[in-house]
Amino acid sequence: MTQTAEFQDGAAYSGGVFMPVAEAKISVLDWGFTRSDAVYDVVHVKDGRFFRLDDHLARFERSMARRRIAIPESREDVKEILVRCVQLAGLTDSYVAMVASRGRPQVKGSRKPADCANHLVAYAIPWIDVIPAEVQERGATLMVSDHPRVADDAVDPTVKNYQWSDLTSGLFDAVDEGFDTAVLCDARGMVTEGPGFNIFAVIGGGLVTPEHGCLHGITRRSVIDICAKQGIACRTGDLPRTDLESADEVFLCTTAGGIMPIARIGNRKIEAGAPGPVTRRVMDAYQAMHEDPAYVTFIDSPTRFAAAE
Amino acid sequence: MTQTAEFQDGAAYSGGVFMPVAEAKISVLDWGFTRSDAVYDVVHVKDGRFFRLDDHLARFERSMARRRIAIPESREDVKEILVRCVQLAGLTDSYVAMVASRGRPQVKGSRKPADCANHLVAYAIPWIDVIPAEVQERGATLMVSDHPRVADDAVDPTVKNYQWSDLTSGLFDAVDEGFDTAVLCDARGMVTEGPGFNIFAVIGGGLVTPEHGCLHGITRRSVIDICAKQGIACRTGDLPRTDLESADEVFLCTTAGGIMPIARIGNRKIEAGAPGPVTRRVMDAYQAMHEDPAYVTFIDSPTRFAAAE
Repeated sequence: MTQTAEFQDGAAYSGGVFMPVAEAKISVLDWGFTRSDAVYDVVHVKDGRFFRLDDHLARFERSMARRRIAIPESREDVKEILVRCVQLAGLTDSYVAMVASRGRPQVKGSRKPADCANHLVAYAIPWIDVIPAEVQERGATLMVSDHPRVADDAVDPTVKNYQWSDLTSGLFDAVDEGFDTAVLCDARGMVTEGPGFNIFAVIGGGLVTPEHGCLHGITRRSVIDICAKQGIACRTGDLPRTDLESADEVFLCTTAGGIMPIARIGNRKIEAGAPGPVTRRVMDAYQAMHEDPAYVTFIDSPTRFAAAE
Repeated sequence: MTQTAEFQDGAAYSGGVFMPVAEAKISVLDWGFTRSDAVYDVVHVKDGRFFRLDDHLARFERSMARRRIAIPESREDVKEILVRCVQLAGLTDSYVAMVASRGRPQVKGSRKPADCANHLVAYAIPWIDVIPAEVQERGATLMVSDHPRVADDAVDPTVKNYQWSDLTSGLFDAVDEGFDTAVLCDARGMVTEGPGFNIFAVIGGGLVTPEHGCLHGITRRSVIDICAKQGIACRTGDLPRTDLESADEVFLCTTAGGIMPIARIGNRKIEAGAPGPVTRRVMDAYQAMHEDPAYVTFIDSPTRFAAAE
């Protein structure tokens, strides 16, 4: 796929128009910014194929519904817009985002969210790893942060949102102490998630991943699916901090990075290596899923938008 | 002060340039948006005078320091930029905002906040009341929301931020049930704040306002200052929900609206009226403060920016 210089940094859709990603901006008065009143989702394209696009679209719709955000575009519209962004950007590996923002009140001076004109922004940019490739090679180092995660009843973490202050605080602490990244715990000392990823612990040959305090990630779901197919025990539920700290293996997972083995957690080196045997098995299976037609959407699909330019 | 049509909706400063506020936008890739990684402050101009501008600038600097955000502009620069925005907009009554955003990483693919180029956006727009003037006339109706406020140890509410999801949830509940606005409580059932305001209860002739779970507002500080001068008892600390619900008088306070009396809290009408006698005394004193040279900065102050255009 060829790209023009105009779109070399990525392509975006905003206000009904496609544009280079550098031109995709929102007003500083948009409540998506001034109240962080927006939901989003991210899907990845590898080797010219979207992975689990319909699952991401379904979650995006659920996030919008939970925050009472309604955009003019249908699900099919959003799908074609994302495909078209990738086509315009000429990318075969891409990080593709869809954002639904509250917008601004259409009634002058209104402070009611319901009076706002909600809108969609979407973009496709070159692939970004949440953990750089060279770190993935050696395995990442993970700090269990003392900074608490925001409670689920205050901000629902299953509604994918940009309110990252607690995660950013954890990340600052981690980088200060020489770690690659951090995972946060809730007020009960149960592990939740980190900035942009879910976490799994391998304990006694089986997997455990938190159920509360975290996004229900699509990659997390893929790992759960893999376990079901391969007969690996997998439990979703409370993961006490101490269980994570003494786990046999630990890996992070995210759309923007896949399965990322952890080499060191706090001051303890993971003896099984990074990746350890169970993590390796999951990584291989996750890679294989990208060849399964049930999960992929080709980026050369025709769209109604191609003709419009 | 005259305004040109170009600036009739307000004037902004971004990237070192002044522009009509409609042109003030941030990239959809800016972490100020994608991680809500930004701090801000809002100061008001009434009758051609900023009120407590230096206090707002000091708080803005503190917020930046706490989130490790450093903008190129000095405090004096920010001050002159705000003055210039108001001058360009030709407003004698204005809502004036300063925003410091994390920006984007200058190291390709970096996920570290420290690698980002932080930047300032500022704007002056026509005055907006948090509670519309006609509602203020009759006194606002307030719901004590069951939606919990984010805990202080997860997200520090004294660092003025845009992460309003919990406040927005409370606002949705309030509007659904016919109230003008909502106040949230913490996990202990102590009152915190609402979307954009602090709250005071008048109990037995004295005032109580929450200390935790809330921004330490400049208008809140003005009320505390008024009480000290006028010999009105004022306590900052825990305010149990039940104490608020049975208070003699209740008022909200915010830069964008001043002192706002509450006429009904939940299903209970405030017998003392809206405003009641203590609230009225505070309102009058607050208005008088706007004439005190110790608190005001005139918008016709010269700036280094005027000559540059």
